[in-house]
Amino acid sequence: MLPRDYAAENCSIARTLEVVGDRWTLLIVREALAGVTRFDVFLERLGVARNVLADRLARLVEEGILDRCAYQQRPVRCDYVVTEKGHDLWPVLASLMAWGDRYTAPNGAPRVLTHAGCGGRAHQVVMCASCGWELASGELITRPGPGGRRRRPARIGSST
Amino acid sequence: MLPRDYAAENCSIARTLEVVGDRWTLLIVREALAGVTRFDVFLERLGVARNVLADRLARLVEEGILDRCAYQQRPVRCDYVVTEKGHDLWPVLASLMAWGDRYTAPNGAPRVLTHAGCGGRAHQVVMCASCGWELASGELITRPGPGGRRRRPARIGSST
Repeated sequence: MLPRDYAAENCSIARTLEVVGDRWTLLIVREALAGVTRFDVFLERLGVARNVLADRLARLVEEGILDRCAYQQRPVRCDYVVTEKGHDLWPVLASLMAWGDRYTAPNGAPRVLTHAGCGGRAHQVVMCASCGWELASGELITRPGPGGRRRRPARIGSST
Repeated sequence: MLPRDYAAENCSIARTLEVVGDRWTLLIVREALAGVTRFDVFLERLGVARNVLADRLARLVEEGILDRCAYQQRPVRCDYVVTEKGHDLWPVLASLMAWGDRYTAPNGAPRVLTHAGCGGRAHQVVMCASCGWELASGELITRPGPGGRRRRPARIGSST
């Protein structure tokens, strides 16, 4: 995983990429959210090098995205279990998946996200918490928040 | 940017990470969506090495995420303009931002996403296209899609 290379950035996107922006990390989280807990199963399903996987899992535990729970003592063997913080990454995976379905899947989506209750197709949308409207990106503005330094509002997709 | 290292994967998440999973790429797209078009402005705002930036911009053009438009002929100077394919990455950035606001911003969100019309706070949700319900992740299942190989449905966050 990356060192904190964006120190000059005060941006939640950059901060998140510091944690999960490594090439393998989000795929490890994808497997963990699908229920994988064992080192050897991650290894087999991802085809990642053993030392890389060990390093990324250790960093995910350090970041509180996975918990390590010993299921055997001699030698110690652990399950890696997704925490709430890790679980909250699923919208990131869902948005990557939606873009990939549109632009990298000429034969159609490999998998589709559906509502367990009624079987309908699930999709991410942006809603306004105030007026309840479903928003297109042209209707969005980013403004400085409570932790912000810059004062300038910016329309998404605007030109300088 | 990464070589196609996930060749064995038939997954829209992995395919998307092949395109934008590089450490700098999504921050370049973030700046482009905020209206940056000039090489030197990307350079200054990101603090990235010149050769790295040149390489990532070239790959983004090759992938059709940015368009190169010459604004000067001798020497050739270009604007980098976001295409529709690039614009469609903004939900990925929004979901990274939301997670970062929650877990990496102890002083509060650096920036907030708001509805330009009414000023309300915007947030991503998952809706069911069939019943119109707003879905929690526990209500979601991924199923094989038209481009899928695996047949097994999987509940998000389930254990193996």
